[in-house]
Amino acid sequence: MVIVMEPGATEEQIQKIIDALTRKGFDAHRSTGATRTVIGAVGADAGILDPRDFQLMGGVREVLRITEPWKLAGRIFRPEGSVIAATSARGARVAFGGPEVVVMAGPCAVESEDQIGSVAASVRRAGARVLRGGAFKPRTSPYSFQGLGEQGLKLLRAAADAQEMLVISEVMDASQIDVASKYVDILQVGARNMQNFTFLRELGKATLPVLLKRGLSATLEEWLLSAEYIMSSGNHAVILCERGIRTFERYTRNTMDISAIPVIHRLSHLPIAADPSHGTGLRDKVAPMARAAVAAGADALLIEVHNDPDNALSDGAQSLQPGQFAELMAQLKGILPAVGRRLA
Amino acid sequence: MVIVMEPGATEEQIQKIIDALTRKGFDAHRSTGATRTVIGAVGADAGILDPRDFQLMGGVREVLRITEPWKLAGRIFRPEGSVIAATSARGARVAFGGPEVVVMAGPCAVESEDQIGSVAASVRRAGARVLRGGAFKPRTSPYSFQGLGEQGLKLLRAAADAQEMLVISEVMDASQIDVASKYVDILQVGARNMQNFTFLRELGKATLPVLLKRGLSATLEEWLLSAEYIMSSGNHAVILCERGIRTFERYTRNTMDISAIPVIHRLSHLPIAADPSHGTGLRDKVAPMARAAVAAGADALLIEVHNDPDNALSDGAQSLQPGQFAELMAQLKGILPAVGRRLA
Amino acid sequence: MVIVMEPGATEEQIQKIIDALTRKGFDAHRSTGATRTVIGAVGADAGILDPRDFQLMGGVREVLRITEPWKLAGRIFRPEGSVIAATSARGARVAFGGPEVVVMAGPCAVESEDQIGSVAASVRRAGARVLRGGAFKPRTSPYSFQGLGEQGLKLLRAAADAQEMLVISEVMDASQIDVASKYVDILQVGARNMQNFTFLRELGKATLPVLLKRGLSATLEEWLLSAEYIMSSGNHAVILCERGIRTFERYTRNTMDISAIPVIHRLSHLPIAADPSHGTGLRDKVAPMARAAVAAGADALLIEVHNDPDNALSDGAQSLQPGQFAELMAQLKGILPAVGRRLA
Amino acid sequence: MVIVMEPGATEEQIQKIIDALTRKGFDAHRSTGATRTVIGAVGADAGILDPRDFQLMGGVREVLRITEPWKLAGRIFRPEGSVIAATSARGARVAFGGPEVVVMAGPCAVESEDQIGSVAASVRRAGARVLRGGAFKPRTSPYSFQGLGEQGLKLLRAAADAQEMLVISEVMDASQIDVASKYVDILQVGARNMQNFTFLRELGKATLPVLLKRGLSATLEEWLLSAEYIMSSGNHAVILCERGIRTFERYTRNTMDISAIPVIHRLSHLPIAADPSHGTGLRDKVAPMARAAVAAGADALLIEVHNDPDNALSDGAQSLQPGQFAELMAQLKGILPAVGRRLA
Repeated sequence: MVIVMEPGATEEQIQKIIDALTRKGFDAHRSTGATRTVIGAVGADAGILDPRDFQLMGGVREVLRITEPWKLAGRIFRPEGSVIAATSARGARVAFGGPEVVVMAGPCAVESEDQIGSVAASVRRAGARVLRGGAFKPRTSPYSFQGLGEQGLKLLRAAADAQEMLVISEVMDASQIDVASKYVDILQVGARNMQNFTFLRELGKATLPVLLKRGLSATLEEWLLSAEYIMSSGNHAVILCERGIRTFERYTRNTMDISAIPVIHRLSHLPIAADPSHGTGLRDKVAPMARAAVAAGADALLIEVHNDPDNALSDGAQSLQPGQFAELMAQLKGILPAVGRRLA
Repeated sequence: MVIVMEPGATEEQIQKIIDALTRKGFDAHRSTGATRTVIGAVGADAGILDPRDFQLMGGVREVLRITEPWKLAGRIFRPEGSVIAATSARGARVAFGGPEVVVMAGPCAVESEDQIGSVAASVRRAGARVLRGGAFKPRTSPYSFQGLGEQGLKLLRAAADAQEMLVISEVMDASQIDVASKYVDILQVGARNMQNFTFLRELGKATLPVLLKRGLSATLEEWLLSAEYIMSSGNHAVILCERGIRTFERYTRNTMDISAIPVIHRLSHLPIAADPSHGTGLRDKVAPMARAAVAAGADALLIEVHNDPDNALSDGAQSLQPGQFAELMAQLKGILPAVGRRLA
Repeated sequence: MVIVMEPGATEEQIQKIIDALTRKGFDAHRSTGATRTVIGAVGADAGILDPRDFQLMGGVREVLRITEPWKLAGRIFRPEGSVIAATSARGARVAFGGPEVVVMAGPCAVESEDQIGSVAASVRRAGARVLRGGAFKPRTSPYSFQGLGEQGLKLLRAAADAQEMLVISEVMDASQIDVASKYVDILQVGARNMQNFTFLRELGKATLPVLLKRGLSATLEEWLLSAEYIMSSGNHAVILCERGIRTFERYTRNTMDISAIPVIHRLSHLPIAADPSHGTGLRDKVAPMARAAVAAGADALLIEVHNDPDNALSDGAQSLQPGQFAELMAQLKGILPAVGRRLA
Repeated sequence: MVIVMEPGATEEQIQKIIDALTRKGFDAHRSTGATRTVIGAVGADAGILDPRDFQLMGGVREVLRITEPWKLAGRIFRPEGSVIAATSARGARVAFGGPEVVVMAGPCAVESEDQIGSVAASVRRAGARVLRGGAFKPRTSPYSFQGLGEQGLKLLRAAADAQEMLVISEVMDASQIDVASKYVDILQVGARNMQNFTFLRELGKATLPVLLKRGLSATLEEWLLSAEYIMSSGNHAVILCERGIRTFERYTRNTMDISAIPVIHRLSHLPIAADPSHGTGLRDKVAPMARAAVAAGADALLIEVHNDPDNALSDGAQSLQPGQFAELMAQLKGILPAVGRRLA
């Protein structure tokens, strides 16, 4: 942290700042220029100082943070990048963050054995390796369909095993981690839970990889700090997932921040996936945005596919039909070599 | 919901829409104009239809929702407005939503018996009726001070009782509701938990009033739907609290949306409080924004006051000193009569 | 500007930064700590350096700007605050930024002699001192009513003179400054023109005060830099006007940033007005937000009033009826003493 | 427009709405359901009604617009899409919106004959067909470099002619259109001028194609209405250009809205370009975002390239070096066939 004093700051004011820093356990490094004094705070935990604590002290013009606030999630912790493997009990395996781009696909919500079996078969045929499907559904309205719960997880697991796929599904609460861990291979955390800190700590004790979606208005810094919560509690297998942020645009449900992909790759060693289904909210925008995400360097895709979108119990409007998904996979195969990647 | 067809929509496309509506349990009301057909969906639960489910069907130009999606939280449910009382075991009592404006004040976090006792005495003297203080702290970084837990609640209760005040404190998780209910009179839900739906349902089973803060990027509709979660689970004693939304402005921590106050008053019967401390994040903006909130019709204020802000363990930069708080209370007493209110 | 080097930055990289700074005319002030080097750029024009120019140079971790980029608009230029007077040829006079709060009111657009005369009489009676009314209208759609032009200005002037009022009206382009200056006492610049830099320079040559509205997504820094354009071209009589920023909220047209009022008062010596009509876009929100603005310290208000809002040619939905305006003025008279002000 | 009445609306209130619509020249189409009445406004210009004019009338619950507000810019006006050609006096020619993707490249600002000549040669060699370069520079601060003016345009033209390229350059004001038209082949309008309506009308009288950048916080609807201003004044040759919108993210200068590309393609027949240099503001994000834009269906790219970015007079931080640009062009050639396009 750098504290820039006003040109007319008094010696007493400067000393008060230095004392406050010292009291909080930092070395204060003072440099006196022709017109103003600048004080640097140096210490192992400089990242956790709140700049605002100094902003209103006498004689202070501005306070600037100079270190990133994370430790384990930062690129510097593992400059070569992390490769995070997920495996199923039956031996299916994918790796996120390596040369292969992993495609996860399936319906928004598990609705029935027929539905999930049919979708699993078609997305597997087209090249998806991980089956997605919601059993616990976070819905904005208490009156919307809330998912089949554990029964949905069972159907999801059976459908994935029949296709030698892995399973990803959302958990909404610490109380669901144990039951979900019996059936899924990757735990998904939704955008609205990105800063549910109690929950993040519990996920840090889980043994499965966690896919952490970005909050609707989260900055990249907050997102990485949420990953830090999970990692600092013991679980380093975190996959980030961009799913659109809120802007004032009304033609799309969210604005998918494709630039988050290269920026996260520079700030962090963690792999990053993209969810163009939630990112746009409209079926005919999913394919262009999936292509864009891969072209920008995404390590994985999470895509909603439904065998009968018009009658889906939730989010049918943003689900691809199986034929549209197969067509998209063919386009992706054309783009991947240009960015030095291949399909998992 | 109103579905507007394209000028050239075919009879078959129109029939497909009507069939889909009927299948979902709605009456379809067709009106055929000179150039286009408009189909209205009528039914008890029209509010829960997802307009996007129809948006991509053949021949559809636009889909518009015409009913508000809430039932219990809407003004129409109780047109005269709700007055929500909170009481302490010792008999202290306040009412939110009536002619009196309730002021809740205290430190961001409970730090020690001395600190909370000193703050309680000074805010009570200036006119606050409810003591605030955090025992469970949601912090963006896992390395920040996380609160004293149950010990903090005990200190808070004792300090409040000594001053004949009520207590409000934040709970972060369903697992904290029981322990908090032993010590507090109003349960506070933070902005980051506004859409933690599992938690909201549990709060619906609590017997204490709940103060529900608005999420950082929540629309008013989402906020009221979160209140609806609590209410539809059994607890109708919900107080809303505006605490600033995220914008691109960097001189303030958040942008406090004062206009939410009159808009909520029109949409809902629930009382609305304002938190100018989190709403701005800077001490010298707290008083102007507290005055503005009351002038715009706020039913309550939630304000951070610390006996020694420069050494506070969290959010000291946005805490008022006791003298500043007393000065603000004097200003409020000048403004309240102009809006037909008085201090609780 | 402060340039923070990476812990492992080489001597050569450091030297390259210092050379670049020197070449741009700055003194480089190097301070070498235990683990990292920090370089400060000192010079009269440090405010105009683009931090991004250094961000991608080798060995650089972060670049931080430490001085505010404005000179004339900053509070430091006139710490006691500016009082800006406006006068009409007939001798009407108001001062912005002093102890009096100035109320400017009138219709969105001048429509006819009867309309403007009737509105002028009623707002004057209720206490407004400046008559507003649009003659050149910036409209999002090319098919909307675009204003009466010079004829509208004539009607506005005549109506104001009959009531001994001043006149404010919007100019959209450098070509309109001369004609408008014949009829108005304050030139208004709309939100969409806040960064029309060619136009701002021309306004700097005008002799009338300029009321500069904040852009829909402008930061306070950008807004003050636009004021700086006008001031550095010779015209120091700038009044800022908050009129709502764009957020994702859909129940209001814009979100009025009341906190801009105290923040601007700290950053700048210029007076600041508030426009609750555009700030909310809905008539029944105008009075609460006008009260809030004054309670937060606004120096002036700009309010739309129409004698027959239901038949207004533009923005009728956000115009007060004369009776509503009179009621608001009475409420303001109650609030003003609490903030140490009085009505002009 | 559809006006939904409250369940308890009176016959008199309904009649008042119908009268108001009739007075404004619309046919009112009333449909009375079991619990409520819905009134549709039908007429050639329904798009220009302001829904808010009806929102506050008695008995009205909600007012919904059902037609898009543009005529010439909408896809329905030319369903097959527009192909817009640009040609130089020397016979160079490109077409926007056809099977070829056009790459426009060059420095942020023209600085000298050597600089522009060197950049032109290198971008042409790598495959760019249009040379960009600023002569009139809109700068947030009045103290920043403002461009070389007409002299810059001359240098730009000469450099382009030497390489058989076309020229695109920004005009900031109606007064610059004539002089710019002597040297450039495409007129560029910057984000800050997107709603400078007087200027847009003048551009409608120009004979050159206009590249219209999206405003920093413009919705797609506002953007298309600005195109409508130019088109309705006579010039149908409009190319849209996405250049990033403002969000709260601070690691990038703007958030490039890649989804605008497929959405605009659905709403409008106009071609759309992407500017990843302004869209991200950082050199190392330009290539990923250029690839993403093309993968999402962009018709053209506008990219900043500088022969010596570290010493550029403006925006050096977001300029590619010639070698980086050549590498990007090679990647694009790999991606284009996957989306059925080729390089111009």
